[in-house]
Amino acid sequence: MRIVAATKILKANDQIAAENRALLASAGVCCVNVIGSPGSGKTTLIEALLKHFAGRIRAAVIEGDIAGSIDAERIEALGIPAVQINTAGACHLDAAMIAAALRELDLSGLQLLLIENVGNLVCPASFDLGERLRTAVLSVSEGDDKAVKYPAVFQSAHALCITKADLLPYTNFSLPRITADLHRLNPQARCFQLAALRGEGVAAVAEWLIECLSAGRAGADASSEK
Amino acid sequence: MRIVAATKILKANDQIAAENRALLASAGVCCVNVIGSPGSGKTTLIEALLKHFAGRIRAAVIEGDIAGSIDAERIEALGIPAVQINTAGACHLDAAMIAAALRELDLSGLQLLLIENVGNLVCPASFDLGERLRTAVLSVSEGDDKAVKYPAVFQSAHALCITKADLLPYTNFSLPRITADLHRLNPQARCFQLAALRGEGVAAVAEWLIECLSAGRAGADASSEK
Repeated sequence: MRIVAATKILKANDQIAAENRALLASAGVCCVNVIGSPGSGKTTLIEALLKHFAGRIRAAVIEGDIAGSIDAERIEALGIPAVQINTAGACHLDAAMIAAALRELDLSGLQLLLIENVGNLVCPASFDLGERLRTAVLSVSEGDDKAVKYPAVFQSAHALCITKADLLPYTNFSLPRITADLHRLNPQARCFQLAALRGEGVAAVAEWLIECLSAGRAGADASSEK
Repeated sequence: MRIVAATKILKANDQIAAENRALLASAGVCCVNVIGSPGSGKTTLIEALLKHFAGRIRAAVIEGDIAGSIDAERIEALGIPAVQINTAGACHLDAAMIAAALRELDLSGLQLLLIENVGNLVCPASFDLGERLRTAVLSVSEGDDKAVKYPAVFQSAHALCITKADLLPYTNFSLPRITADLHRLNPQARCFQLAALRGEGVAAVAEWLIECLSAGRAGADASSEK
């Protein structure tokens, strides 16, 4: 019975996600769903990208949290439009929440929409939001066994951002192991290594996103759409 | 509709959890539900406690993971009985999974049962497994804002284990902030600070568990049961 209910919810979600995707495509907005554990460094990565793009790419952010607006306040402090979704206990964003948030945003002239999902390496993987790209975020302090233990996020991501690389000397995290596990699950995935608070590695992620923006405009992104 | 379904699931879960709790109480087993993000250090904490208890406390472990048996293998390498639950995609353990795992364990003579939940700081908080104690695990690399952002786990835990304290010099984690946030949500919660790989702080958690075991035997644990 529980499985039936979950299937119905996911089917309804997929319909709304398709509507979100069509709306964003018609507005020329590239939407990125950022998924990772609590404390993996999602907000810090988004902040670093926004600073990198300042004056060049018109961006907005949707922040998903169980409670509070700490993250949206951090984004607005950078002068970037931000919508905070409070999920009232739900452990993931869903497409209906994003549809509601999109009504609060001025999409005209927007190029990039970053969605920071609820901190959770499991459930967000099952919910298509209508994004064009999905990025997994994993900090080196979480350990290098996470792709094996939580495969769904890694399977469905277009890129993995390995964060807090400045902590590598103090952990037993193996970059070869996580890279091998990622590419076994998902051979096409890009893999980036960052220490975002120090600005290290941010430019490479930003360049990849700019490539994707350009590809999207040329209509070359059909393969990544459902 | 989705909320109704969730309520029904949680009611059914609570009935099975009550049966698990009664079974464990009659067998004299103190059961601890260990909840934290992926990579927060749950398995390392459990390993350190088992080594500390070796020859003194008869313990067993139930390991919950989406996939794989990495963690149960780590526990069995210590000579401790371990049951691996694979949740087949579910992001949390539930009481029915624990009921099935309990049938695989010899409870006679057992004193302590540690359950390592799926790595997730959100959903496991909603599912009573029939445990007597609940411990939240948070690593300093996850950030000191997590009690505010994910309150349910911190509200329902009897103790918070702050792990990877050896990384404190390399992070901006504030122990006063997390302690204040924890006690605002949950004034009774114990708070421990550990660097479990170095063995630091493990004895204090172990002593607290031994106190709880003794209190349980004296029937003084009624207040922590539902």
